[in-house]
Amino acid sequence: MEKLPLIGLGIATVGSSGQTLDVHFPFIVFKNGNGEHDHAYGGWDALMDQDTISLQDPSMIELKEDSFNSIITNLSDNKKLVLCRIVEDRKIRTIEEAYLKLHLLSYKFFKPNSLNLDNLFNVLPNVAWTNRGPVELEDINALIINAKAKNKNLEIKSVDKFPRLTDYIIPPSVRIADTSRVRLGAYLSEGTTVMHEGFVNFNSGTMGAAMIEGRISAGVIVGKDSDLGGGCSTMGTLSGGNEIKISIGENCLLGANSGLGIPLGDNCIIEAGLYVTGGSKVKKFNAKNESEGTVKAADLSGKDNLLFIRNSLTGAIEARINLKSVTLNKSLHDNQ
Amino acid sequence: MEKLPLIGLGIATVGSSGQTLDVHFPFIVFKNGNGEHDHAYGGWDALMDQDTISLQDPSMIELKEDSFNSIITNLSDNKKLVLCRIVEDRKIRTIEEAYLKLHLLSYKFFKPNSLNLDNLFNVLPNVAWTNRGPVELEDINALIINAKAKNKNLEIKSVDKFPRLTDYIIPPSVRIADTSRVRLGAYLSEGTTVMHEGFVNFNSGTMGAAMIEGRISAGVIVGKDSDLGGGCSTMGTLSGGNEIKISIGENCLLGANSGLGIPLGDNCIIEAGLYVTGGSKVKKFNAKNESEGTVKAADLSGKDNLLFIRNSLTGAIEARINLKSVTLNKSLHDNQ
Amino acid sequence: MEKLPLIGLGIATVGSSGQTLDVHFPFIVFKNGNGEHDHAYGGWDALMDQDTISLQDPSMIELKEDSFNSIITNLSDNKKLVLCRIVEDRKIRTIEEAYLKLHLLSYKFFKPNSLNLDNLFNVLPNVAWTNRGPVELEDINALIINAKAKNKNLEIKSVDKFPRLTDYIIPPSVRIADTSRVRLGAYLSEGTTVMHEGFVNFNSGTMGAAMIEGRISAGVIVGKDSDLGGGCSTMGTLSGGNEIKISIGENCLLGANSGLGIPLGDNCIIEAGLYVTGGSKVKKFNAKNESEGTVKAADLSGKDNLLFIRNSLTGAIEARINLKSVTLNKSLHDNQ
Repeated sequence: MEKLPLIGLGIATVGSSGQTLDVHFPFIVFKNGNGEHDHAYGGWDALMDQDTISLQDPSMIELKEDSFNSIITNLSDNKKLVLCRIVEDRKIRTIEEAYLKLHLLSYKFFKPNSLNLDNLFNVLPNVAWTNRGPVELEDINALIINAKAKNKNLEIKSVDKFPRLTDYIIPPSVRIADTSRVRLGAYLSEGTTVMHEGFVNFNSGTMGAAMIEGRISAGVIVGKDSDLGGGCSTMGTLSGGNEIKISIGENCLLGANSGLGIPLGDNCIIEAGLYVTGGSKVKKFNAKNESEGTVKAADLSGKDNLLFIRNSLTGAIEARINLKSVTLNKSLHDNQ
Repeated sequence: MEKLPLIGLGIATVGSSGQTLDVHFPFIVFKNGNGEHDHAYGGWDALMDQDTISLQDPSMIELKEDSFNSIITNLSDNKKLVLCRIVEDRKIRTIEEAYLKLHLLSYKFFKPNSLNLDNLFNVLPNVAWTNRGPVELEDINALIINAKAKNKNLEIKSVDKFPRLTDYIIPPSVRIADTSRVRLGAYLSEGTTVMHEGFVNFNSGTMGAAMIEGRISAGVIVGKDSDLGGGCSTMGTLSGGNEIKISIGENCLLGANSGLGIPLGDNCIIEAGLYVTGGSKVKKFNAKNESEGTVKAADLSGKDNLLFIRNSLTGAIEARINLKSVTLNKSLHDNQ
Repeated sequence: MEKLPLIGLGIATVGSSGQTLDVHFPFIVFKNGNGEHDHAYGGWDALMDQDTISLQDPSMIELKEDSFNSIITNLSDNKKLVLCRIVEDRKIRTIEEAYLKLHLLSYKFFKPNSLNLDNLFNVLPNVAWTNRGPVELEDINALIINAKAKNKNLEIKSVDKFPRLTDYIIPPSVRIADTSRVRLGAYLSEGTTVMHEGFVNFNSGTMGAAMIEGRISAGVIVGKDSDLGGGCSTMGTLSGGNEIKISIGENCLLGANSGLGIPLGDNCIIEAGLYVTGGSKVKKFNAKNESEGTVKAADLSGKDNLLFIRNSLTGAIEARINLKSVTLNKSLHDNQ
């Protein structure tokens, strides 16, 4: 993994107890020198004996970009500057590392499932995400009472370990109709449109232009020019018992309200309303529409050109050869 | 289309590049003189040689309403007054025309599918919808960094070509449990309740009181006293390959998690969990429950009094005669 | 019901017409003396001849807690202090009683379906929930125009009779990924995680740790250690025609995009994508997988250890004996 080591320069929010609640990393610097901000890397080697540093004295960094200066000076009282270094891709030990890895995914420096995210849930605190920034849960009741009495605006948008992607990063050439549906750590490629019913978890996403009106679970990858219909489900591995990582190839269509429990190859279609799980027994047909007997859906994992339907007269799930080509509506993906 | 010509008097937001980002049209004036504000139409004929006018000098308008004056004076620096005229219903050429047509739908001056919306996606820019108003995407990263450093509130609610309906128009006697789920351009009739899982796209909506807990795709019309159950899907024509415009008659019930790929007549029911697509082969029964053989679901398009179920023993989709009458719970629709 | 009588001390928002729009009840005092704030109950007996009192003179309350004082003094102009007493559990007569009962559910003083909520929809006004607090719908158009002209932030988050839970109460050890999906009146137990696609209506909720990625309708109760998969549906009784109150036992799994129209016992599984309604005919199998004939799903209501699937070869819904044990992923429910 030649992208390591790297350093994130970030702004952390400090809660009333002194705990770090989140970190925004606007700048990532790679030692390999290929990155946009790498020329600023110079004087930082001295800091590399520690992994996470809270900077009291910004002059410790050799600043080569004016944009760095503008964020370093005049930080709000509950903010602090943080340097976080990742040399090896070990399990996560600190909240700073957790946020840095989530940023690395959403900046698309690393693909989903390519970073070690062990310990992520343990390291991230559960906080209230408000219009005043993240707030420790111990403080929230007093804030609510005070806001009610004084008619002050306090909006608690989420109580969760993960924040929204767009509070930190806006991926280029992407539409996200409802930003509350995409977590930090999502990997969204150019030309991707996430509609209101779409959802993208951390460590998952799209490898090219895609229409996402269904739910991309953690760990799930969607190939370019694929279309996830409204309300469709991709089985995740965090809860519910599934253990196989789901992926979707290129030019696939998951129909509305359908579901997927196996990895799909390219050019596959799941009929609207059909849920294909790994254990489903499926009647297989060849390109001449001749029966080839019954197989487990899991045995069709990763195969191209399959059309999955439930026969509306017999009720059987069938896998046929897909002769149609899925094409995205270009006007929906020219997200300028 | 006797409602034309008409003029919208609007307030536009101007981005940092000078681009218009959105337009709010609080007043629509019809030349036919039937509208609420038509008496203010007088002096505007002189302006009718152009289609869209940015008013530097508000005195160009003959103001006959005090409410006009209050919005014209003291506009914020990034706002400008706009007059947009529509004489013929041509394809959309400007962002002002796009916003005016979306307003005309949501004010219910025009029904879904009755206005020419060609070119809509090309004309609308993709912008960040924030608590500071619409923001050009080029500016957003600098805003995020600054907000983080200074602990200022910057909420990016959506990155999209379409804004929320309720940022512009609150239809009378309607409930919308989560306003992020209804786009500007939605047509919502009195007595309509859109629950949290409901969704209404532009150029679609309800023709009377209705319970909407499912998704109304662009172009889809729902008749009065119909009930779209939680998570149900109506096939749209923008993506996913469907080409038939879906409509739903009066007194229909789409069960939870069901789906619809054909137009429905009145008094029809789709069983919860069943997705009926146009190509589905369906076993048809008459009012005496005698088999009438097999038909394609598309052949039942628009027919009244049908009950679609999937036989839970044979797995076959069946169309039976619906003997039940769907009635809305009145207390859920008296939206005062 | 020994918890009565009780008194709620609340802060009400008064609309421009003088109508009460909502009430926040930060303190509940029980006459039985078991509650956290009951020592403050002393001097209030004198007030017990009325049910709802707007306090002009806070000194009428014998204040024994400093925290009471801090909210009573310096209320904003559109706020007033309210005492609301519930002696008997009668049908709801005032908005104050409505909000108090919704608070009692969300504080978990009363379980769902244990309070008389008759008349709730009639008593609650439909209001615009904004970043400036609740606003009467008559005022909203003028606010929108003014906000547009002056580029002021006006966010209308909801137009509804019910507000969000988290605008009033943050239940301990709970995660709610998108707070717009949980209404005031929801009952959420410690260890519950409501994901983005989850939804919890008023008068419904979880009796212990649970993963909620589907929709809990009004009146529905979920037992501890159960998992509602993404997009799953539980039939409610408010709309759509169902009349049986649904409940889900302990250690159950509703698969993604599944649906439930009968009460479930403990340790049951509904296969992903399968909707079980009360009227579904189901092939029943015993623990040796021997057929026991066909039953109506409603006849299996409340039974433990059932696995509901749709046979993917025959299309029949089957109820088998569930031999697997559902276990929640602990790291997802340690919501500290």
